[in-house]
Amino acid sequence: MTPLRLGMVGGGQGAFIGAVHRMAARLDGHWNLVAGAFSSDPARAHKSAAELGVDPARSYDDFATMAGKEAARDDRIDAVAIVTPNHMHAPAAIAFLEAGIPVICDKPLTATQDQADELAAVVRRTGTPFFLTHNYTGYPLIREARAMIARGDLGRLRVIQAEYAQGWLAEPIESDGQKQAAWRTDPARSGAGGAIGDIGTHALNLITFVTGKQPNALSAELTCFGEGRTLDDNAHISLRFETGARGQIWASQVAVGCENGLRLRIYGEKGGLEWAQENPNQMRLTRLGQPAVWMTRAGDGTSGQATRLPAGHPEGYLEAFATLYSEIAQCLRGDEDAAILLPGLDAGLEGMAFIAACVASSSNDGVWVALAR
Amino acid sequence: MTPLRLGMVGGGQGAFIGAVHRMAARLDGHWNLVAGAFSSDPARAHKSAAELGVDPARSYDDFATMAGKEAARDDRIDAVAIVTPNHMHAPAAIAFLEAGIPVICDKPLTATQDQADELAAVVRRTGTPFFLTHNYTGYPLIREARAMIARGDLGRLRVIQAEYAQGWLAEPIESDGQKQAAWRTDPARSGAGGAIGDIGTHALNLITFVTGKQPNALSAELTCFGEGRTLDDNAHISLRFETGARGQIWASQVAVGCENGLRLRIYGEKGGLEWAQENPNQMRLTRLGQPAVWMTRAGDGTSGQATRLPAGHPEGYLEAFATLYSEIAQCLRGDEDAAILLPGLDAGLEGMAFIAACVASSSNDGVWVALAR
Amino acid sequence: MTPLRLGMVGGGQGAFIGAVHRMAARLDGHWNLVAGAFSSDPARAHKSAAELGVDPARSYDDFATMAGKEAARDDRIDAVAIVTPNHMHAPAAIAFLEAGIPVICDKPLTATQDQADELAAVVRRTGTPFFLTHNYTGYPLIREARAMIARGDLGRLRVIQAEYAQGWLAEPIESDGQKQAAWRTDPARSGAGGAIGDIGTHALNLITFVTGKQPNALSAELTCFGEGRTLDDNAHISLRFETGARGQIWASQVAVGCENGLRLRIYGEKGGLEWAQENPNQMRLTRLGQPAVWMTRAGDGTSGQATRLPAGHPEGYLEAFATLYSEIAQCLRGDEDAAILLPGLDAGLEGMAFIAACVASSSNDGVWVALAR
Amino acid sequence: MTPLRLGMVGGGQGAFIGAVHRMAARLDGHWNLVAGAFSSDPARAHKSAAELGVDPARSYDDFATMAGKEAARDDRIDAVAIVTPNHMHAPAAIAFLEAGIPVICDKPLTATQDQADELAAVVRRTGTPFFLTHNYTGYPLIREARAMIARGDLGRLRVIQAEYAQGWLAEPIESDGQKQAAWRTDPARSGAGGAIGDIGTHALNLITFVTGKQPNALSAELTCFGEGRTLDDNAHISLRFETGARGQIWASQVAVGCENGLRLRIYGEKGGLEWAQENPNQMRLTRLGQPAVWMTRAGDGTSGQATRLPAGHPEGYLEAFATLYSEIAQCLRGDEDAAILLPGLDAGLEGMAFIAACVASSSNDGVWVALAR
Repeated sequence: MTPLRLGMVGGGQGAFIGAVHRMAARLDGHWNLVAGAFSSDPARAHKSAAELGVDPARSYDDFATMAGKEAARDDRIDAVAIVTPNHMHAPAAIAFLEAGIPVICDKPLTATQDQADELAAVVRRTGTPFFLTHNYTGYPLIREARAMIARGDLGRLRVIQAEYAQGWLAEPIESDGQKQAAWRTDPARSGAGGAIGDIGTHALNLITFVTGKQPNALSAELTCFGEGRTLDDNAHISLRFETGARGQIWASQVAVGCENGLRLRIYGEKGGLEWAQENPNQMRLTRLGQPAVWMTRAGDGTSGQATRLPAGHPEGYLEAFATLYSEIAQCLRGDEDAAILLPGLDAGLEGMAFIAACVASSSNDGVWVALAR
Repeated sequence: MTPLRLGMVGGGQGAFIGAVHRMAARLDGHWNLVAGAFSSDPARAHKSAAELGVDPARSYDDFATMAGKEAARDDRIDAVAIVTPNHMHAPAAIAFLEAGIPVICDKPLTATQDQADELAAVVRRTGTPFFLTHNYTGYPLIREARAMIARGDLGRLRVIQAEYAQGWLAEPIESDGQKQAAWRTDPARSGAGGAIGDIGTHALNLITFVTGKQPNALSAELTCFGEGRTLDDNAHISLRFETGARGQIWASQVAVGCENGLRLRIYGEKGGLEWAQENPNQMRLTRLGQPAVWMTRAGDGTSGQATRLPAGHPEGYLEAFATLYSEIAQCLRGDEDAAILLPGLDAGLEGMAFIAACVASSSNDGVWVALAR
Repeated sequence: MTPLRLGMVGGGQGAFIGAVHRMAARLDGHWNLVAGAFSSDPARAHKSAAELGVDPARSYDDFATMAGKEAARDDRIDAVAIVTPNHMHAPAAIAFLEAGIPVICDKPLTATQDQADELAAVVRRTGTPFFLTHNYTGYPLIREARAMIARGDLGRLRVIQAEYAQGWLAEPIESDGQKQAAWRTDPARSGAGGAIGDIGTHALNLITFVTGKQPNALSAELTCFGEGRTLDDNAHISLRFETGARGQIWASQVAVGCENGLRLRIYGEKGGLEWAQENPNQMRLTRLGQPAVWMTRAGDGTSGQATRLPAGHPEGYLEAFATLYSEIAQCLRGDEDAAILLPGLDAGLEGMAFIAACVASSSNDGVWVALAR
Repeated sequence: MTPLRLGMVGGGQGAFIGAVHRMAARLDGHWNLVAGAFSSDPARAHKSAAELGVDPARSYDDFATMAGKEAARDDRIDAVAIVTPNHMHAPAAIAFLEAGIPVICDKPLTATQDQADELAAVVRRTGTPFFLTHNYTGYPLIREARAMIARGDLGRLRVIQAEYAQGWLAEPIESDGQKQAAWRTDPARSGAGGAIGDIGTHALNLITFVTGKQPNALSAELTCFGEGRTLDDNAHISLRFETGARGQIWASQVAVGCENGLRLRIYGEKGGLEWAQENPNQMRLTRLGQPAVWMTRAGDGTSGQATRLPAGHPEGYLEAFATLYSEIAQCLRGDEDAAILLPGLDAGLEGMAFIAACVASSSNDGVWVALAR
């Protein structure tokens, strides 16, 4: 099967997530990177293009030019990946959506609610496919957990504990010019959320994806520990669900010793499960009255969905990310079923509502705030 | 050294914690059990005494008789352990305190605040020694963590995550006559707190013990999932500390798959540590900018305090509990230093204030409630 | 029930295993220590006795005197624990056995085969009860594993991997006067085996206890890494069983980073299990074609035998050791069933044969040596 | 940078390792698959080619045709990956080597020593680059361990424990037509080694790679448990090194509950380390007299070599494999340093000598056999 053609906005030299998108796109052979506006600095953009083996004719000065020129080509890109800081998601995405080019956008959706509303309107009006890379949904055992809960294995859910603990911002490294830290701690580029936007939205998304339910209200305590910082770098959130379930989220960027500690624990009337991203090939499952079972990716007792390798050969972050890219490819090739599990505009809007609700609650002494649907 | 003489109130046949106290008292050879009022049912009490090898002459019908008669003996007991359901702690303790007999009381302090106030007044007036068995403070690595934090190894503390997750009350087993479940879910015998009283107070106590700080305010969401239950069996609590630190407690009795999941994680400006009671011989410590270290009980890099065995020979729950009993013995023999780490009336009052604040906050939609000092 | 009276030979100040025996004996309340010859140095012996609260009249200068005087008392000891270095096991045990006093002997049985033969003859002739404290057999999940294998849960066994890895002798600390190291590395006090005698016999015993089978031949490579040492401090052993099963033992005292790494893995046609002493409250069990299950001590799916506490409250080394003492007490009180799982003379002779076979094989370039039965 | 052109022999529909090679080749963008002889059955080969998007003009009936035609093209492949069953490695590799096309060969080198000798002669004569995909050498922490040992962090090595435990052949699934099992248990296609060839060689290679030393002698006990099987499915091997170090290998395909349990433990005079492939992002390191440290891939204290992602974002089997492909690309582009860590002919011959020595020792009752250099 011929690979699809991928374009990219952002992701030039020194970027983290752009390189991740490229590896993820390549892994299963469904995508070739053929065009890009890799930086807001054109010189840097073209240098990055050269390094990436992208035809200079398709290395663009800016995303607007790129959207226009690509839309005009017969061999136009099949989709564009937007991997800029958050504040550029909306303008870039809109340019491509208007040009009829499907968009694969990094999360969170946008920096502000206004941008989100504008983007949502364009997605809805144009009908151009729009995907949001909440990549942790690509982990096979997360898919397995979702299926188990959907078919009632855990019974009615009661308690949901999610956490995403990192320690890399324990010190104010943004002052020392660390590029990844700089934009993430800058409200102008990140939006109203610090830790809650960057990682809290992942925790929320994972809850929603796995349980099939969004919380309907939350109470948040956002804190900012890093010297000179204005955005939260630690968040404690309590959750209520319409079904009566209750939950907590802890998101932190100052938890020294934590690397990328995304962890999900879910308890229902008939069972409980636990999964941690740093060892994603295992999931602990307990059925009421029985000893705990360790499911392994592709191992006995699993469906083996969304995996490439036999059990015991660890898959990781890039494989999970690649699953999204492969399903997007299938989807763009016309396989409607492939879209079922792919996060898109709704997941993005849920994330924005979550950030807004956290900020509103925290600035009002933790009052419970409804999460709009 | 001659062992001290121990009496016991409660802890007859079918009890759990009474047997634990007896094993803990015996382990290091500092105590002999010589007297008791082992049940509110005299027949059962005497039968238990016989099984325990207690002289029938010192097996009493009730605690009041016991306090009176023991106080009158030359070979009177050196202390009494009170291991009844919560609502009996205060009357029994008061009887012995008034008789000048030191009291070793299980937690939480009492079932009601009124009882707590009355008991506190007696402790203060009589000056009779009073100990509360917050046993998890006896774990060697918890002691180690306390010392590390006290000397500033973690720097100024920022985030404190405590949890105590159990699953044994996932179903309403109290309806089936399970004795342990029956009194714990009964407000008349337990007091206003369900999970928060039975296990939440342990989590709070561990935070206070290890960090040297009590939270000064909390916001709580108490939930009751078990059918027909009136006391909380799940609690989500956010914490504020005067120092600016923030924290969360999760206490649950309905988390299927969790056995006795007491876990503490603490993050400061210069380091982080993690400890879990189910594998208490290890503690994960990370110093800023360094890889994580696994300290082991009595292992390299530890002080070896409060341990009996070389590293690698696991100690557990009973050993930690025994450390309290041994320190109480030392204390009663006149070693004042031995009392330094022992929980007593203050810890008990803190626990009562915590239960009250949780109930007040939760019944008022999670409003932040100050914790009295 | 009145506790039995325990005497002790060895175990004075500075000893390790003597203190362990005393704690183990006390834990369940079945024993009181009332007599002893606590050291080969009488002054030290009496000082230890005083510290231990033993009546000076029953603190003896030597084991021979003790055996004679105790045998003559109406309130003579019910058993004696022998916790000296290996070379003294036989003479001390024989003295008590001849006096009709039951013996609880630390392992390995003796320092030499001649001693073992002499001791065995006395045990057989006198019929006096003789127990050997292969304490790891007291772990509840080891008992569980034994029962599972006995009833065929794993099917016909194929592969057995045992290891006992320590690192405490990585450096020649015996030269610096470390008492525990000094006698263990001294052939005159330990016998022909270094690591194989001190810890290899535990690994062998655990295999035999759990599988119900002794290997019938072995090939060994004993090595001595510590400077100036003459006994093995590392052993690699291959095993053959009559049933066709095959196995390996690795025992080491120079594995830096290992504390007390006794570990057992057993694989049969229908399942496999894995257990490690340093986290003894869990056992991994896999049934063919199913995901792995983590059994927990006293947890769902276990028989709960030989445990004191609910699941999740960790028990450890002392509790396992105490189970032996409690079963010995039951046994001496006339409960014959209590003796079923207790290691005794046979286990001791198997250990001696194992040491001899390892030495013979290793000194003959690893030739396979039959294990006498 | 323009990707290199990759050809492939074997790896058609239903193959396992061919798909792995393709993903590994794609991940970092250094290779495009452009040609192949994907099966010994031409129809199947062409069907596979179509699925893989390979130009029909470059889908060949057999490897000989492919080698000839590709060698004649201007845009000939830059290398060929040989991913057939073992017995076809030599003829296919020789055809390409003679045609001057670099070869990337799966392990073990060949099915027989004669084939190995012939292949070695061709590699040496032609000077055409030859790589062997001992993929586990690509794991970042394995590279880290190698560097640590090379610079003496562990001191003089003493004990080396390697194991590779799988359970997938516990039952004779080769009889049921499981393709992967069928050729691996067939001496005609696998050669003289079963488990030792398929996975034992990986364990050996990892030892050699990490320690920089090959064992100089071994004693082996090969066993065959699976009904109707003639090749070993379990191997117990003792190792001697010229330096005095000693080791054990355990390789098994019948260890129920083990998935892909490759594990390496190394102990020297000054430290010890432990690594397990199923959780490859962590490595336990203990320096003498200090508590154990958990190094994480790309985490604090590591060099970060051969990694793509920040610590905490797990990389796995494919990433390690991809590192080999990327280094091969660099190497073929002229970067000589890139070849330093790449396994090639020598590693292959070492593996063959290992298989031969295991068979010789085991068939002679475990006599020690020298490993030729």
